[in-house]
Amino acid sequence: MATLLHIDSSVLPVSASASRSLAELFRATWLEQHPEGTVVHRDLAVHPVSHLTAAAHHAGYLDPARHDGEQAAAFAERKELIEELEAADAVLIGAPMYNLSVPSTLKAWIDNVVLIGRTALGAATLQGKHVTVVTSRGGAYGPGTPREGYDYVQNYLEGVFGMMLGMEIEFIVPELTGAPVDPAMAELLPLYEASRSRTREEATALAERLAARLGEAA
Amino acid sequence: MATLLHIDSSVLPVSASASRSLAELFRATWLEQHPEGTVVHRDLAVHPVSHLTAAAHHAGYLDPARHDGEQAAAFAERKELIEELEAADAVLIGAPMYNLSVPSTLKAWIDNVVLIGRTALGAATLQGKHVTVVTSRGGAYGPGTPREGYDYVQNYLEGVFGMMLGMEIEFIVPELTGAPVDPAMAELLPLYEASRSRTREEATALAERLAARLGEAA
Repeated sequence: MATLLHIDSSVLPVSASASRSLAELFRATWLEQHPEGTVVHRDLAVHPVSHLTAAAHHAGYLDPARHDGEQAAAFAERKELIEELEAADAVLIGAPMYNLSVPSTLKAWIDNVVLIGRTALGAATLQGKHVTVVTSRGGAYGPGTPREGYDYVQNYLEGVFGMMLGMEIEFIVPELTGAPVDPAMAELLPLYEASRSRTREEATALAERLAARLGEAA
Repeated sequence: MATLLHIDSSVLPVSASASRSLAELFRATWLEQHPEGTVVHRDLAVHPVSHLTAAAHHAGYLDPARHDGEQAAAFAERKELIEELEAADAVLIGAPMYNLSVPSTLKAWIDNVVLIGRTALGAATLQGKHVTVVTSRGGAYGPGTPREGYDYVQNYLEGVFGMMLGMEIEFIVPELTGAPVDPAMAELLPLYEASRSRTREEATALAERLAARLGEAA
């Protein structure tokens, strides 16, 4: 019985959020293929996790038997987040671009789960696990656009999930999501619509492919 | 009478933090040149600011007279942070690299102060203001190192402070700060020492140059 860990970080509700609505489509498709599967949903916008603290940082490198009270409390939260991630068969993350990078709530989650010696840099607990990242953005950042080179979500998360955690990462990238709400972007509406259709197809296809692969592995 | 806004975000105390100790050196040098100056210190590790919320996001684009209670409260915090930044003659930020990017507390501050129509993207309230960023990292990320291309602090903050906010940005980049505490990095100690000396000289010189420039402008 496969488990999907589904993390959202958009501050907007699903009706106004491309990352939430595409993640919801992915999750629904995945559950259709995996009716016996489990989805664990963590909504970082509604329930932010703690920022990394000195106690949480040091606790990660100490024998838990040596933790003081503050370290034990801080490490309990890190451990819960790490175990939830380790227990998942696949991971789905809604990571809208805010000011060129990920929301601060998602960065706080990353700073908790990246732990050298356990999850990161050659440690093997997440090695090869698949993560799908839905990274929506109000504008466009692809080759030839004025914002080319200013996307610090996709390359950054490749660094964290790929290089540091050894995970297998695929992206779904809805662009120009500001077009339906920003009159100045009206002429970009057709490109937005095309991006919306393409990413909905990608979310469905990727969820089906992943569910089939997990089914074969089970 | 010039004002320096000094922001720290390392979770470690100054005795164990390269970004804090270099920022402290910069600040002390600046005050020597500017005995009548004011330093406003904001420590994001000790007093984190709120993550951006839906209410804070929407409030930024509404006439304050139309804010509901939640929006008014959320915007009061954004306004305080923005006014503090606008009031500064120069800005100094300690931004240690955590998991390839900035601490989540610093990203939360960024998400509060970047406001299209006021501070960002052609809006002029921060145009040309000087910001010094001390971005320390445990390893090395320069050309020819195994981690080349995995630094998402310097290029990212150039995007935010430069492209989005129109500020003038200079970096001080102490590297290999893990060497004194990590036995596996022992052979890198001479390179760490060289980086430490170089960045201490840079912090002093930059603070003197900036103080002189602000003095001329006054």
